[in-house]
Order: sequence, then structure tokens, then C-alpha cells
Amino acid sequence: VVAALRRILPAEDIVYLGDTARVPYGSKSGATVVRYARGCAASLLAERIKLLLIACNTASAFALETLQAELPVTVLGAVEPGARAAAAATRSGVVGVIGTLGTVQSGAYGRALARLAPQVRVVSRACPLLVPLAEEGWTENEVAVAVARRYLTPLLADAPDLDVLLLGCTHYPLLRETLAEVVNDLAGHPVAVVDSAHTMATAAREELSRRGLLRPVPSDGRRGALDVRVTDDARIAEVGSRALGEPIAVVHRVDL
Amino acid sequence: VVAALRRILPAEDIVYLGDTARVPYGSKSGATVVRYARGCAASLLAERIKLLLIACNTASAFALETLQAELPVTVLGAVEPGARAAAAATRSGVVGVIGTLGTVQSGAYGRALARLAPQVRVVSRACPLLVPLAEEGWTENEVAVAVARRYLTPLLADAPDLDVLLLGCTHYPLLRETLAEVVNDLAGHPVAVVDSAHTMATAAREELSRRGLLRPVPSDGRRGALDVRVTDDARIAEVGSRALGEPIAVVHRVDL
Repeated sequence: VVAALRRILPAEDIVYLGDTARVPYGSKSGATVVRYARGCAASLLAERIKLLLIACNTASAFALETLQAELPVTVLGAVEPGARAAAAATRSGVVGVIGTLGTVQSGAYGRALARLAPQVRVVSRACPLLVPLAEEGWTENEVAVAVARRYLTPLLADAPDLDVLLLGCTHYPLLRETLAEVVNDLAGHPVAVVDSAHTMATAAREELSRRGLLRPVPSDGRRGALDVRVTDDARIAEVGSRALGEPIAVVHRVDL
Repeated sequence: VVAALRRILPAEDIVYLGDTARVPYGSKSGATVVRYARGCAASLLAERIKLLLIACNTASAFALETLQAELPVTVLGAVEPGARAAAAATRSGVVGVIGTLGTVQSGAYGRALARLAPQVRVVSRACPLLVPLAEEGWTENEVAVAVARRYLTPLLADAPDLDVLLLGCTHYPLLRETLAEVVNDLAGHPVAVVDSAHTMATAAREELSRRGLLRPVPSDGRRGALDVRVTDDARIAEVGSRALGEPIAVVHRVDL
């Protein structure tokens, strides 16, 4: 998500907080995820932010409405932008959603698609191994392919006509090529793979523009600052740089 | 570990605390693991326990000495019992240790084996995907085999004579059959697979016996109580019962 924001909103300063001491959120209960999301949001609000993005589908699925109701800034989640991208991409009207246990069990994507595109049929599947696979950097080897086949085979059996696979977790774009290859092979017809990162960044730009809060790109073309904070600094340099596609110069550790 | 304790110390009451809201510990920094282990220990000490077992190799590797120095009860970790089992089992004098990133990077097994059996050569490898594999219940399928081959192949290439594979993580016994099959196949000679659960329970019995604190099995053969506590209750009934080999009747949630 940060990589997409850096492309689409190059002049904005970004404060990124990764709750690395308590991740993954994907297999935890809604109550725990809401509690952690509240703490993360409070820490970011202290920086006088103008917009809060929940760049995690599990936290969005469980905590978006709570944070929107409680916080004094606009809060955008990952689910609605992802659902919007999927609704725009499907021709057959059948969309597959993969995500964490929490995201899938919450039913958040089904509800969002029912609002945005009531005629679309949604099938979903929790894929708990994809996050650790992405963090291990095994994104294209024989293990990644075997895991993808095992998760996607029942999805295609259940919905042979699906023509969109929505990556309902912000880790999954790291596995995009493998997932695309496997889902197209299993379907036997073209399946579009969409995620929420780009759509989320676009939604952020629209929201800032609507409220007159967009920062113009300066004449010298200088990019905004990127302030990276984590609750545990064990692996952020390696995993974070791989996901962001640019080296991370300085990382601050915060206690939550 | 609890399953082994229930067999070896059937009359003892056990208070088990799983920090499920913040697991896995395996990829986190030593500082974070020590902080969390201190909080867990404080919560258990409130129950007037007579012995504290750190039934997690990562927490043992990073926090054992701190907890031993700070707490008023005897503290046993997983590393020393595991190293003892490996030293007893090897004939070739070459032992392979697999564990989490934290356990392997800490070097705790190398130090323990250097103390117990200085002539033994230790090779080790971090296997971050094995914990999520075990929690997904994929313990014997084609994914488990592919993951095991990928982790163990370089270990055997580095140490062709190894004849003991030490499971340096309390999740790994769930994958024992697959790991044993793959390591024996790769080695081409018999490799013993050992873990710390049984040795840890034996060490607990010895310690209690030495201090005259063993509870005798009552004449009616009634087993001790098992009090299961977690910091997040999303998946304990499913994952916990599978690991323990008995249904878990009641689970209490505690906030840390």
C-alpha cells in the first residue's frame, strides 16, 4: 500500500506504522484485532495526520467501523477499495476472494460487494499460509505453487466461472505472479487478479482532493518523507524493503 | 509439552498459558520476546506455581536466564532438555537443529551442546514456515513434504554425517513423521528425530522429586487439573486439542 501511495501521492509525507511485535493479525479474534488497531491508530493520531489508512485487510474487516466512529480524522480501509476493483473487473459476475482466516470469517468482502454490485456472486477461501510464505520470500518456487494449488483448487471447483481473483490481504501482491499462473491454469479461461493497494491509494487521493488537502508536487520534484515505525525491528529492513521496492533508510521502534 | 507432562506427571495440576494474541514469537527480536515472556511469567506466578516451564524454544532461547535471575521459583527451559536428548542420541557426533529464526540466531542450542557434549558438531537451520504449516494442520501432505525437503536439503549438504535431527521448536513434533521421512531419505542412513517435550517433562519430574514437591498419584487414579488460558481465544479449541491429543473443555482468556 505504501508503494502505491508513493507512486500516486508522491508529495505527501507518510507515517507508516507496522505492528510487527504482534503480527500476524490474520488468525486472531475480532476483539483482539480491534484492541490492537485502536492502539495503532492512537499512536498515529499523535502525529497530527490528515488521513488514516488501515493498510491491512484483517484490521479493516474488523476495526474500520469502530475507528471511523471513534476518531476525529477520515479513516479508509482496504476492503471497500478491493471490492470496488473486483466489481469493476468481473464480466462473469463471479468473484473469488482470498484472505486471512479473520478477513474471510468476518464476511466483510461479501457485504461490501453486496452493497457495490448486488448481482455479483462471491466465493471466498482463507489462505493462512500465504502470509508466512511471502515473508519467507518463497514467492515463486515449487512450495508457493503447491500451496496456491491447494488453496485455489476448491475455490474453482465451487465456482468454475469466476473470472476475478481478489487478493484480500496486503501481503498477497508479493505472490501475485504465482497466484495468477495457478488460478488461470485451474480455470482454463482468463482470470483477472486484483488487489486493493492501487485502489486504496486512488481513494486516498480522491478523499484528499475533495477536502482540498492534497499537497502539490513541489517544483523541484522532491518526494514526501517516509517515516517508518515498527513495534519490533527484527526483520523490517529485509521484509519491508522487499515489499516497498525501495530501501528503508531509518526505522523507529515504538512501544504499544 | 503439556501432553508429555500429563503422561509423566499425571497427578500434578497444570496451568497452561498460551500467548495466542501475540504469537508467533519465532520471528521477533530478543527484546520483544523477553518483554512478553516476563509478562506471561508474572501472570502464572499469581497462581502460586511451584515450577515454571518455558514450553517454547524461542522464549527459552532468549528469556530463560532473565527469568531464572528474576523469579522466585525454579524455571526450566526447552533448550537444555532438547540438547541433552540430542547428545544422548548421536553416534556420529553430528547433530542438526531446526527451529525458528529467533532460536537459531540466538545460538542457544550450540552453546548448550558445547557445554553438555563439547565433541558434538552442531549445524542449524531456521524453518519459519513449519509453525504455520503445523497450525494449518498440513502435517503430511505434498506441501509439508516440499517444505521439509527445501529446509533440510542444505542442512544435509552441509553435514552429510548427521544422525540426529533435533526439533528445536515445540510445534515441530506435529510434523514429526514428515520430517523423519524426509531427513532419512536425504541422509541415506538412519537419522534419529528427537524433541524436547518428553525430556522437559522428565526434567520437571526430577526437579520436583529432588525438592520433595512431587504430588503422588491418588489411590483413585484421578488426574490433576488442566487449566488452559490464552490471550486470544480464536483458535485454541481446534489447534490446542490437536496438539494436546485430548479435548480442551474450558478455556479462559486473560489480558496481558
